[in-house]
Amino acid sequence: MLKISDKAALMPASPIRRLVPYSDGAKKRGLTVYHLNIGQPDIDSPVEAIDAVEKSHLKYVEYPHSAGNISYREGLVKYYKNIGIDVTVNDMIVTTGGTEALQMALFVTCNPGDEVIVFEPFYTNYNAFAIELGIRFVPVTTVLDNNFALPAMSEIEKMITPSTKGILLCNPGNPTGTVYTKESLIELGKIAVKHNLYIYSDEVYREFCYTEEPHFSCMHIKGAEENVILLDSVSKRYNLCGVRIGAMVSRNKDIIAATLKKAQARLCSPAYGQIAAEGALAAPQSYFDAVREEYIKRRDLLVSELNKIPGVKCPLPMGAFYAVAELPIDDADKFAQWLLETFEYKGQTVMVTPASGFYASTHIGKSEVRIAYVLKEEKLKAAVECLREALKVYPGRTV
Amino acid sequence: MLKISDKAALMPASPIRRLVPYSDGAKKRGLTVYHLNIGQPDIDSPVEAIDAVEKSHLKYVEYPHSAGNISYREGLVKYYKNIGIDVTVNDMIVTTGGTEALQMALFVTCNPGDEVIVFEPFYTNYNAFAIELGIRFVPVTTVLDNNFALPAMSEIEKMITPSTKGILLCNPGNPTGTVYTKESLIELGKIAVKHNLYIYSDEVYREFCYTEEPHFSCMHIKGAEENVILLDSVSKRYNLCGVRIGAMVSRNKDIIAATLKKAQARLCSPAYGQIAAEGALAAPQSYFDAVREEYIKRRDLLVSELNKIPGVKCPLPMGAFYAVAELPIDDADKFAQWLLETFEYKGQTVMVTPASGFYASTHIGKSEVRIAYVLKEEKLKAAVECLREALKVYPGRTV
Repeated sequence: MLKISDKAALMPASPIRRLVPYSDGAKKRGLTVYHLNIGQPDIDSPVEAIDAVEKSHLKYVEYPHSAGNISYREGLVKYYKNIGIDVTVNDMIVTTGGTEALQMALFVTCNPGDEVIVFEPFYTNYNAFAIELGIRFVPVTTVLDNNFALPAMSEIEKMITPSTKGILLCNPGNPTGTVYTKESLIELGKIAVKHNLYIYSDEVYREFCYTEEPHFSCMHIKGAEENVILLDSVSKRYNLCGVRIGAMVSRNKDIIAATLKKAQARLCSPAYGQIAAEGALAAPQSYFDAVREEYIKRRDLLVSELNKIPGVKCPLPMGAFYAVAELPIDDADKFAQWLLETFEYKGQTVMVTPASGFYASTHIGKSEVRIAYVLKEEKLKAAVECLREALKVYPGRTV
Repeated sequence: MLKISDKAALMPASPIRRLVPYSDGAKKRGLTVYHLNIGQPDIDSPVEAIDAVEKSHLKYVEYPHSAGNISYREGLVKYYKNIGIDVTVNDMIVTTGGTEALQMALFVTCNPGDEVIVFEPFYTNYNAFAIELGIRFVPVTTVLDNNFALPAMSEIEKMITPSTKGILLCNPGNPTGTVYTKESLIELGKIAVKHNLYIYSDEVYREFCYTEEPHFSCMHIKGAEENVILLDSVSKRYNLCGVRIGAMVSRNKDIIAATLKKAQARLCSPAYGQIAAEGALAAPQSYFDAVREEYIKRRDLLVSELNKIPGVKCPLPMGAFYAVAELPIDDADKFAQWLLETFEYKGQTVMVTPASGFYASTHIGKSEVRIAYVLKEEKLKAAVECLREALKVYPGRTV
């Protein structure tokens, strides 16, 4: 009999996708559904990015270099220099989104059966990449009451085994919005060096950092140059999610050389995406300032309104455009479904992401949801109002 | 010590890439180098494709659907219907190039240790995908003297073991240019059904078919609907190599459902690429007629000129834009390097691809080269002249 592979059978279905039919149902009921569930912002890309594509006037579309167009890599060198990261065009591989950057980094460093330490809650799709490669994520739990900060280094160190190959982190974090402190990252770097571990540092939300100090990258950690592999993407930075352009950056020459061979096998990253991303590099600082201001307003509104609701706890996220909130409910999966299937308030309802899917450990985060503040203030306000009303009547409420 | 993974260490370096420094050297010597080594044509894309991108006027670039934009998939349904393949938008996943289509097909069907039968010589990068997944390609050799036709079915059948999951073929073939006959493919379909094997059918050169009969797709094989997985790409069809858009098409619902979950984990294929590919669907038949005519002229010139050279044997390829020729030489790897490093004829030399890299079996094809006829006639003629002169003086010549 024809069968699918064991790994394909293990591929996780996203907790959000389970809810899509219910969301469609709510729309069929004539409801306005506020989508707080997705990481697809409504902010314009820099005009420089769009213009670069529309004025590219290609006659045909050749394969770019497997490591990325040299002109784009030269642009990236300047971009990184500007944030205090000194690298060359030979320290990076342009990838097909941040996704491929992580897939490549794990592929070139891990054998099947190897372990990677990861801080939960974490981006769900990481799980799929682990299954693909037959590696095991070892979760170290971070907690809402501590604003999802990195745990004590001793907690991390005791999870290290002979099979541990590295530590994966996302900073600023999806789904938490947490920005790790410089001090904690330097400590983490010491552990990596001491135990010969890689640090896979997903920093795709770097520009969405609301701390007073500038974002501290793992690439800034002195002495860990060989250990750190930076995973980057233009998806969120310029709201170019669909162009599928990211980068894997490392000063470890062996890693780059090995990744280049893998990159050659898949030929190249998308040409138009590289043109858009290169164009975006010319976006002025005012673009980021305006975006940052907009997100801070949305975040402040969201968090203050949420915390007014009895039983709701939502720490102030310092980065990205997500917040994780604890709700006074039995089960966020059931709640999210109920919101779409049963609830309605003035012809509206709201879609949230249950946080359980972001935890590798079972039975954690059952009452937590991730909320993406990717809607304009007015809609965001209406969405939180819906949530407040829903929590008054939800059958599984706990206050 | 920090190390790279075992699989990363196994990634093959392409035989062409080894030659690049020598090609650069030849250019430094001031020589004109005719590149007969690459599959990057010089033909314009349909204006409809380029226009669609340049007039897309996006404000920002959202994630397309993980299975591909519905409008593009609807366009593909019509495209396939037009070549006699009845499928729906739910029978396909738009992929990031043909590369990802094959990677996904192998991933969802093969466990590590499984075997896939493949006809050598075959596209080198297939090897990388096998290494990634830990599967084993079992080569069945096709021979130049038989124009690289499919071998007797008994030859194929005797390679089948309990670990065999499928048969991978490329039709029209890279590197051979061979078009498999309808009869042989129907026989192959019977074997697949009898032994519960998948057929992975790479048909990205479908439009480059110079036979009188229209191209016969494995999707046309009656009774093998559940077995056939079509791997497709717009790279060659419209000379949109860099847009990275392909497709995996199958009537096997389990395969599509499993692939969709994998597709969701990597989010989507490139947005601008999908816009270009959708635009290209509007290209008139005259576009393909002109391209076909151009390639037939080039092919006829190449093959007739090659066969005039003493000791050279080059069958007439009926598809794609490649030919494999047997040269009167000791070793094509050495010859290709010598052409770039030492040889010169009137300030020119030529770069060819040694065919040995296309064989999984060692010691086969040592005197064969792949020639891509992707240059205009005049240059192609000059290139073959170079080759003729080179074969007169090459120290390792055998006639």
